[in-house]
Amino acid sequence: MDNTQAVKQHSDSPRLVVVGSIGIDTIETPKARRQNILGGSASYGCAAASFFTAVGLVGVVGTDFPPAYVDLYKRLGINLEGLQTVEGKTFQWEGVYETNLDNRRTLRTDLNVFASFRPDLPASYRKAPFLFLANISPDLQLHVLDQMEKPQFVVADTMDLWINNTREDLQKVIGRVDLLTMNESEARHLSGKKALLRAARMLLGMGPKYVLIKKGEHGSVLFSKDSIFLMPAYPLEDVRDPTGAGDSFAGGFMGALAANGDTSESAIRKAMVYGSVVASFGVEEFSLERLQVLTVDQVEERASLFRSMMRCE
Amino acid sequence: MDNTQAVKQHSDSPRLVVVGSIGIDTIETPKARRQNILGGSASYGCAAASFFTAVGLVGVVGTDFPPAYVDLYKRLGINLEGLQTVEGKTFQWEGVYETNLDNRRTLRTDLNVFASFRPDLPASYRKAPFLFLANISPDLQLHVLDQMEKPQFVVADTMDLWINNTREDLQKVIGRVDLLTMNESEARHLSGKKALLRAARMLLGMGPKYVLIKKGEHGSVLFSKDSIFLMPAYPLEDVRDPTGAGDSFAGGFMGALAANGDTSESAIRKAMVYGSVVASFGVEEFSLERLQVLTVDQVEERASLFRSMMRCE
Repeated sequence: MDNTQAVKQHSDSPRLVVVGSIGIDTIETPKARRQNILGGSASYGCAAASFFTAVGLVGVVGTDFPPAYVDLYKRLGINLEGLQTVEGKTFQWEGVYETNLDNRRTLRTDLNVFASFRPDLPASYRKAPFLFLANISPDLQLHVLDQMEKPQFVVADTMDLWINNTREDLQKVIGRVDLLTMNESEARHLSGKKALLRAARMLLGMGPKYVLIKKGEHGSVLFSKDSIFLMPAYPLEDVRDPTGAGDSFAGGFMGALAANGDTSESAIRKAMVYGSVVASFGVEEFSLERLQVLTVDQVEERASLFRSMMRCE
Repeated sequence: MDNTQAVKQHSDSPRLVVVGSIGIDTIETPKARRQNILGGSASYGCAAASFFTAVGLVGVVGTDFPPAYVDLYKRLGINLEGLQTVEGKTFQWEGVYETNLDNRRTLRTDLNVFASFRPDLPASYRKAPFLFLANISPDLQLHVLDQMEKPQFVVADTMDLWINNTREDLQKVIGRVDLLTMNESEARHLSGKKALLRAARMLLGMGPKYVLIKKGEHGSVLFSKDSIFLMPAYPLEDVRDPTGAGDSFAGGFMGALAANGDTSESAIRKAMVYGSVVASFGVEEFSLERLQVLTVDQVEERASLFRSMMRCE
């Protein structure tokens, strides 16, 4: 029985807390260039989760942060008690996608107010059963995790920067989460193993019950000690901007999982379908432009279609 | 209800006819080099199909062809009425896989007796309901197709060489088959469309009811006018030699389909699982070394495991 369903709801107490970056992005693709658009892992993660559950954002912005973006968060139903505004400029990122959107190159990263971010979680957030530690420094991930009372299911994402520079802290994080997620190349890097099966086995050995490897347009793979779930990506004709796809996937996944409350492997697989669907909508436009007009009916319709594309029994 | 099942059987009248190349291969991978091993699309296709149905081989070899390889075909239960032996040398191919097995480079191709191959099908083959036209010249594919009495389901594979040099004949083939299969890059090449969905739509417009795009380690996608089936690849820890994987996939797929007799889309999806499983065994060793000792129980066991890896409802 599947009782996960996309449904917009609001609540004072988030069931899911998402901590990550909030950025002002400038993005160039082979077809377009967009300046000063809303980005960051927390933005994408929260927006994606908002279709399924009450989600609270933990992040920081500068005094230059456009009020329109705060309104956008609000319209998405995101709880903003955990959003800090600090004197100074918001985190900025500039990147370019070359030829076929497969490879991106960072042109500029200005941490700004994000450099000294050290959040105190609102009381209502500390009781949340679900926590998504999006891609930020492991030190910060630990700081947030320490403030949670008794989370039922914790997911952490990471990236090469932390694997290279703060591996000790990263391993502490990994030892305390239920599910670790990262890109294929990062999984190889962190584990030192080229074959994905070996890489996953080594990562599982570091503590988490699940390892979820993101493979971009080739889907994702969920590993546990004794099972594998192979999920393709929803096929798209046009990808406008792949930025944030991994965060939308993880946010949508965690939202669907939190809505359900069931954290069995079967529930995790079902929630991955929803994460993938929301991510597929997200990349159809820049920033949150598609997600901000997306409806729960559209999510359910594509989820149903997507499931039919995986049926072989 | 799934009545497809891996089961070794012999028969005087093949249910499936496979036409393609028989080659003596020399293959170098980053870890090994093997000389004069059995290869060719018909070898891989027939060996893979032999786990499911009575399969007949259409191909040509020279008088230098090692009797041990004929014995191997026989042990696999392959009907050899359609195997011609001609004065001269057998087709030879030499290739090298660089770094990570993703890219291969052809070092040498000696067509030898294959250059003048123009098969007359044995009477028992002409009545076969299933036909797999493996990757050979479209002219030869048409010549074989013309000799079939009333095939129920015809599959054709192709490659860049024919797309570049004999497009007119290739289009005639495509207009007469039920399912067209090729690699992702070839589908883009033939259709002139970069997005896979657009490429598939254009290929479907050329006549076949189904287009099956092979994506190597990323699985395959089946397209019809109004449906898509996304199939991941069975995850492997070690790939020894990827040569023939696409032919094993198509051969296993056609074998499973022929065994069943049902050519509904649901049956096609189920048969793709079997094709993928046999191909996954095939690449574990060079040439037919793994397939020649593979048992139907092992095929069924992996197929069952593979299906469990795709389950999300």
